[in-house]
Amino acid sequence: MTLHQTPAAARSHVPQSHDIPALLALLGDVPVITEPVVVRRRSRDFFWYSPILAEELKDVRADIIVQPRDEADVIRTASACARLRIPLTVRAGGTGNYGQAMPLAGGVLLDINALSGIVWQKPGVARARAGTNLLALDQEVRAGGYELRMHPSTKRTATIGGFVAGGSGGVGSVAYGGLREPGNILAARIVTVEEEPRVLELRQDAAQKVNRAYGTTGIITELEMPTAPAWPWIDVIVAFDTFEEAFAAGRDVAHADGVVKKLLSPIAWPIPSKFGALKRACPEGQAILIAMIAEPFLESFRAILAGRGTITLEAPSEEGPGQVPLYEYTWNHTTLQWLKTDRSVTYLQLLYPHDRLEESVMQMKALFEGEVLPHLEFIRFAGRITCSALPIVRYTTPERLNAIIAEHESHGVMVANPHVVSLEGGSRHKRADADQSGFKAEVDPMGLLNPGKMASYVPVR
Amino acid sequence: MTLHQTPAAARSHVPQSHDIPALLALLGDVPVITEPVVVRRRSRDFFWYSPILAEELKDVRADIIVQPRDEADVIRTASACARLRIPLTVRAGGTGNYGQAMPLAGGVLLDINALSGIVWQKPGVARARAGTNLLALDQEVRAGGYELRMHPSTKRTATIGGFVAGGSGGVGSVAYGGLREPGNILAARIVTVEEEPRVLELRQDAAQKVNRAYGTTGIITELEMPTAPAWPWIDVIVAFDTFEEAFAAGRDVAHADGVVKKLLSPIAWPIPSKFGALKRACPEGQAILIAMIAEPFLESFRAILAGRGTITLEAPSEEGPGQVPLYEYTWNHTTLQWLKTDRSVTYLQLLYPHDRLEESVMQMKALFEGEVLPHLEFIRFAGRITCSALPIVRYTTPERLNAIIAEHESHGVMVANPHVVSLEGGSRHKRADADQSGFKAEVDPMGLLNPGKMASYVPVR
Repeated sequence: MTLHQTPAAARSHVPQSHDIPALLALLGDVPVITEPVVVRRRSRDFFWYSPILAEELKDVRADIIVQPRDEADVIRTASACARLRIPLTVRAGGTGNYGQAMPLAGGVLLDINALSGIVWQKPGVARARAGTNLLALDQEVRAGGYELRMHPSTKRTATIGGFVAGGSGGVGSVAYGGLREPGNILAARIVTVEEEPRVLELRQDAAQKVNRAYGTTGIITELEMPTAPAWPWIDVIVAFDTFEEAFAAGRDVAHADGVVKKLLSPIAWPIPSKFGALKRACPEGQAILIAMIAEPFLESFRAILAGRGTITLEAPSEEGPGQVPLYEYTWNHTTLQWLKTDRSVTYLQLLYPHDRLEESVMQMKALFEGEVLPHLEFIRFAGRITCSALPIVRYTTPERLNAIIAEHESHGVMVANPHVVSLEGGSRHKRADADQSGFKAEVDPMGLLNPGKMASYVPVR
Repeated sequence: MTLHQTPAAARSHVPQSHDIPALLALLGDVPVITEPVVVRRRSRDFFWYSPILAEELKDVRADIIVQPRDEADVIRTASACARLRIPLTVRAGGTGNYGQAMPLAGGVLLDINALSGIVWQKPGVARARAGTNLLALDQEVRAGGYELRMHPSTKRTATIGGFVAGGSGGVGSVAYGGLREPGNILAARIVTVEEEPRVLELRQDAAQKVNRAYGTTGIITELEMPTAPAWPWIDVIVAFDTFEEAFAAGRDVAHADGVVKKLLSPIAWPIPSKFGALKRACPEGQAILIAMIAEPFLESFRAILAGRGTITLEAPSEEGPGQVPLYEYTWNHTTLQWLKTDRSVTYLQLLYPHDRLEESVMQMKALFEGEVLPHLEFIRFAGRITCSALPIVRYTTPERLNAIIAEHESHGVMVANPHVVSLEGGSRHKRADADQSGFKAEVDPMGLLNPGKMASYVPVR
């Protein structure tokens, strides 16, 4: 594994300078931003969670921001970029942590935030424009009695397009698995990057071609997503003397199919010591289990605890203005809570084997005691309960980080390395998904979309 | 294992004759039925699915049927039975197949069908009287946008009390597991059988003391059950050249957490040849997969099939008057469909190990080719996907049936033997549940409830 793959090396097939005046001429009245300071600031996402990417990507910036008002503007921009061979990186909320939407080769940053709103919905399904904010989408769906099945911890700022293009799952995956599971993305509408762009409707399996492809396989303009009947959720924190107990309680609830839940996150001390606003719910020295439980099943949740641990928080989940929902202490927000006051740490993204979950979790805990601090997320994965994990890593050197990754992998723990820019480096399989790679040749033959992200892609023309 | 335990031996602690005139005096105006022909006819349930029980229980009958109008009548009857040491067997729909509600020691058959109706409901929970018919309950809950999480294939005739007292799961268990899972029975209200009966509220874990205890651990008068947001269900049949393919498709759908489903039943040929009304959907020589899929996810279901098999039926699930819902070809209705025209077969009830499911299923299929015909039901069990099974057995002798059971058990397939009258003989562990046995001493100290069913129980006074 190469931790120091340079963006420059990854984008060797794209021109290094771009004819922006010609682009502006072709764009006509499509809104743009060209002020260098604004373009530079808006070029950045949350790549700085990784000290390696923080260094590697610090100078990355687009040449221009294009802000399409509708799909027609997207088509016009895609055509212009194809004609002029200008790279195009799609950007929405900019909440990614792997530098997913960093314009490595400059060119156009396509800000799709204005492409928002629900196209239609019916019980169980909502079709929305890619730039729709997840909280707004959820609230609109909730008005009809439904809710999003899953969302990242960045729900309040991220978009549905960004979630599908850059994410894998999150709050809700303990019930429904990840986005890659059948039924979790029903359809995607995309614009190709060609001189005469096409608009394609990808349904079911085919829609997976845009899932976590970092925007390299077409410009997503609409997504058809499943919705679930809405529950009143209760945020819960349970404190335990040991991480082992927090894990065991989480595991027992995860396996209880009769208990409707959206989140189960065991977190080791001292991570909760960084949860400022939750201080009273996070006793000194104790591990915690964060949970979201549907209100009618809170009593069943308590029955499973059977006296284990102490419930230190139990309140209806709130995510309105001025409120910090409990899920903003889980998934990669856990890392953010620590980074707010201490940039000396970073994180990893792991997937534990389902068939020796506890053994494997405790083995890694023991192996890196005090250096890799356990933070698990119970999820379903291909129909089985296991844990995703985003442990806090006390960072020293790239070499040591690499050694920690290698050690996890050698013990059968899969690592989605968040410290490399390319899809391949970050994937569990160290290669681009075959379907996605093949599909890219059809929809982005010149390799202009987010160049450097699908590093193994060789332009076909 | 004793296949021929006699009811008489099992009920040795109860008197063999009962003072019915004294009982009538104590009951006052509580409605009763004493006409011998009616009492005999109503004493029977569906025990005759088993040729062994059919022989063993053919002469079993109660002395009197008591029909309480409300809980006060139940209390009066329980007190009277306690004072006179008269056995009391609770009976509702009478749809059990293990002779659960056969009055082995005679005495009172307590017909609770009049104890019906919803006590209260809120989103996610419904509290109903024990004698409430399951279809009626479901329809009333549906009016508010919810539905029962699970029901037996006898939904149209069975009651919620009977389901909890005699069943283990059914349609819906592929999503929520069995009744024994936390959250699947929220509370039970019971009347004890003592001279001064008490009314107890059992919540959560404690409510499991009445689950599948065949009415031996108190008289259930109310149940608080979880409900799920209602979906429009689509009944589907897919036909395959081989049972292996039907199994594989069912397994893939079972593991797809993004696809909302209520039923997945792979059934081997020639079983579907007995599905008269479904003839056109059951091609000659083909195995079938029966499924209930939430309408918005039917397209995802088809995507998982990916061209495997042929969809021969796809229609909204209907269970109104005059309609035979598709689920009446699954669970133990599969057996009934065959028994309608041929009483030479019987069945078994199996639980396959989740960690070598396919291997185990195919091993049993090969071992008893042509004699034990595969019929599986995908379920969740303790958070894992596995299969319950109710194979059709071509019956020859009790000894051969016993050998088939022993062979399954020796290969790690658990058998809930439906050919014995006692809880112990039918349990996977061959003993009464410790909680239930201990609890019985508190609520039925004289052992008057359904005597012979918890055969190991020794009266404490």
